[in-house]
Amino acid sequence: MRTALLQSSGHPGSVDKNLEVLDEAAGRAAAAGSGLLVTSELFLTGYAIGDGLARLAEPADGSIADAVAAVAGRHGLAIAYGYPERGFDTGLVHNALQLIGADGTRVANYRKTHLFGCFEREHFTPGDEPVVQAELGGLRIGLMICYDVEFPENVRAHALAGTDLLLVPTAQMHPFQFVAESVVPVRAFENQMYIAYVNRTGPEGDFEFVGLSTLAGPDGVPRARAGRGEELVLGDTDPAFLSASREQNPYLKDRRPGLYGPLV
Amino acid sequence: MRTALLQSSGHPGSVDKNLEVLDEAAGRAAAAGSGLLVTSELFLTGYAIGDGLARLAEPADGSIADAVAAVAGRHGLAIAYGYPERGFDTGLVHNALQLIGADGTRVANYRKTHLFGCFEREHFTPGDEPVVQAELGGLRIGLMICYDVEFPENVRAHALAGTDLLLVPTAQMHPFQFVAESVVPVRAFENQMYIAYVNRTGPEGDFEFVGLSTLAGPDGVPRARAGRGEELVLGDTDPAFLSASREQNPYLKDRRPGLYGPLV
Repeated sequence: MRTALLQSSGHPGSVDKNLEVLDEAAGRAAAAGSGLLVTSELFLTGYAIGDGLARLAEPADGSIADAVAAVAGRHGLAIAYGYPERGFDTGLVHNALQLIGADGTRVANYRKTHLFGCFEREHFTPGDEPVVQAELGGLRIGLMICYDVEFPENVRAHALAGTDLLLVPTAQMHPFQFVAESVVPVRAFENQMYIAYVNRTGPEGDFEFVGLSTLAGPDGVPRARAGRGEELVLGDTDPAFLSASREQNPYLKDRRPGLYGPLV
Repeated sequence: MRTALLQSSGHPGSVDKNLEVLDEAAGRAAAAGSGLLVTSELFLTGYAIGDGLARLAEPADGSIADAVAAVAGRHGLAIAYGYPERGFDTGLVHNALQLIGADGTRVANYRKTHLFGCFEREHFTPGDEPVVQAELGGLRIGLMICYDVEFPENVRAHALAGTDLLLVPTAQMHPFQFVAESVVPVRAFENQMYIAYVNRTGPEGDFEFVGLSTLAGPDGVPRARAGRGEELVLGDTDPAFLSASREQNPYLKDRRPGLYGPLV
């Protein structure tokens, strides 16, 4: 499946303008043969918008979801987008990622479990469900957000649950480029999966986002790699290559879970 | 503490010749101010020597240990060396790493827990103690061997147990250079520790070892990096830098062990 990574900060604070950016990118991605478009973290509202996060937060089945579903249906591809979610049951605000199918169906929704720094802890409540998955294009898709991927435990849990392609919208800031450049490819290798890591760009509030979005393969080699600016990059996943790579790198089979007790 | 990485395959099959190589390297390392010399995996006997491994295997307190203790004492530095260990209790052969202090005392002994491929499974019994540590030069030293470090669970267990400098003799072969180049620096970063990864070089039996020994820092940056050939490289650990880096990258504090149940 061809996957499009929308490296963009869009227009922080304006959901309408971000939907326009998304629509335009979805058109280009679909024209280039993509079956899936992935945005950066909190793309639909912006990241560094302070109390705007709570103000713009919506339930997973709210009007933002409807608008994204319309974009997905119009261009005929699935969309995974970052947004602030208002818990339908609790009213709490979560840093969330929703996957909507090409037919506009809401397929899966994930709430970031590992919040980063004071800013996120002030504005969000962490989720408690570590592994959220869905089937798409013959692959098992996993959902995760930014800091989550820096914890090897999280990605391992996905590998054990059979994730083939892990989607990781992010708001990766200076000086943590090492995560985009090295940690993400190593996670893909050590867990034998593809990882689509999709970042914001440029200055926003107190932050300086670094781009470098990557689709990393199970051999640790990027299939797509963005620079520092606004960019739509495309890369392919290959189930046959993934399967062969897992045979050659039997990490999951060679684990010794009986020795890992101290981790939990 | 300055640490010397002896990237060498020595003379497979000849313990005496390897002790000569070790003695010469220990002299150079000590003269350059090193407090610790680390060899590659199975350095004292050679790796691809088939049944020679069982024939040359000795208990942890055998004559090889005595000879290494003499080298350590003569040059006044600690030595961590790879060798095949004959279990004093069981008679089983383990792929082991022993740390001997500058005064010749046996300080710690580790048996590889994750064996790699058919060759190792034919010749060794895996160990069952995942975290072995010792205090040296103001640092908590951890012991591990080769394939062990490719499992994030293993290194995380060391981080949780407070390891500052992880010693990883290896027999890293073509085409797995990605481990030396990327996995090891990422392990050091994600666990906020130093890692000394010390490889063999050149062809040996059916294998082609790739060198690239590295002392990686908690920022993921190599403090020392060897090429492909026989080489003694030196790098420094810095407790103050390590402490500051841990403050800036609070991975251990931000973990959520309650979510990691599937790993064990």
